[in-house]
Amino acid sequence: MATFELACFAQSGNAYKAALMLALHGADWQPRFVDFFNGGARAPEFLADNALGEVPVLHHGDVVVSQSAVILDYLSHHFDSYRIDTDDKVRREGLRWLFWDNHKLTAYTALHRFLTQFAPSADEAVVAFMKGRRDIALKVLERHLAGRDWMVDARPTIVDLSLCGYLYWPEEIGVDISATFPAIARWLDRISALDGWKHPYDLMPGHPLPDRA
Amino acid sequence: MATFELACFAQSGNAYKAALMLALHGADWQPRFVDFFNGGARAPEFLADNALGEVPVLHHGDVVVSQSAVILDYLSHHFDSYRIDTDDKVRREGLRWLFWDNHKLTAYTALHRFLTQFAPSADEAVVAFMKGRRDIALKVLERHLAGRDWMVDARPTIVDLSLCGYLYWPEEIGVDISATFPAIARWLDRISALDGWKHPYDLMPGHPLPDRA
Repeated sequence: MATFELACFAQSGNAYKAALMLALHGADWQPRFVDFFNGGARAPEFLADNALGEVPVLHHGDVVVSQSAVILDYLSHHFDSYRIDTDDKVRREGLRWLFWDNHKLTAYTALHRFLTQFAPSADEAVVAFMKGRRDIALKVLERHLAGRDWMVDARPTIVDLSLCGYLYWPEEIGVDISATFPAIARWLDRISALDGWKHPYDLMPGHPLPDRA
Repeated sequence: MATFELACFAQSGNAYKAALMLALHGADWQPRFVDFFNGGARAPEFLADNALGEVPVLHHGDVVVSQSAVILDYLSHHFDSYRIDTDDKVRREGLRWLFWDNHKLTAYTALHRFLTQFAPSADEAVVAFMKGRRDIALKVLERHLAGRDWMVDARPTIVDLSLCGYLYWPEEIGVDISATFPAIARWLDRISALDGWKHPYDLMPGHPLPDRA
């Protein structure tokens, strides 16, 4: 058995945040496939590990950690790398952006993508609402990244890995990032140039989805 | 000048989380009113403190902290009280619920309330979508609280204060909590019995809203 196991599936940007952290640190890890599109995150054996029914879940020996930001925090201590608690100010800034990501950037981006790419049907007004909120979040991110290399320090941290979770799927989220958000595009290039980086579909199982009736 | 100043307004459950923490600890604090409904969170002087344009913002001497969970974390260290970092497991559990609150419970509850109570108009499908997500989150919370007094430990922590942020407005959120979610109702009673507790409308300025054209 590998040192780390990550319950995940290829289409989950939240799982990607954790998988990317493992990949960038050359960790001995293996995925544990969650068949999300066939109810895998509602299965009793999955809910036993995480009653919230959310992917990802990390298994490390007897320790079970869920929620992408908490896993990132856990791994940053384990590897002593990409940490945000190197000083009080970076820690506060880092936490703030992690919460903002979960509350806004990832939340709206993932919901919008889910509704347009994977849901059997979706109300147009709901899709438009999510897109509007998503676009506001992307503008905030673009403004913050203009003139800086990484989100909260002179080096990459877990904040960068969290925020990029859904942004390597420009077609699926329907945003021409290079054309519209140049600072975000350059930052994504910096992340993808890191040793060990892989695209989510090359890092986690379950892509492409089988045709569904 | 008071030791703490909190940029807030009465209708913000996210600001309430921080205000309640200050009140429960008998802190020397005063509110700094943000006229949210007239663009106060988009004003240059506010954005200078928090480029994300989000209430609340805490001022403590030269330290400026924004984002409700980060402020709660900051104050829990300052007061050495309601902390979640007393051991690794409580810390992970606490962080997980704080992220879940920001991502799901508070996010959907606050958006649904905003659309139904304060927005000039709202699309019915969007309102229904938010309500559906909000109700799932309330069920998760109810299940977790059944048979336990506090969220992540045998005592109240900042997690309890975060999660209750929007739940003392049952009429405004349109949920008969006592009838539908008895474990949540009992937990809210436990919080409101804490020494120093006040309802958000008695703790922060700006209620009631003036009639708007």
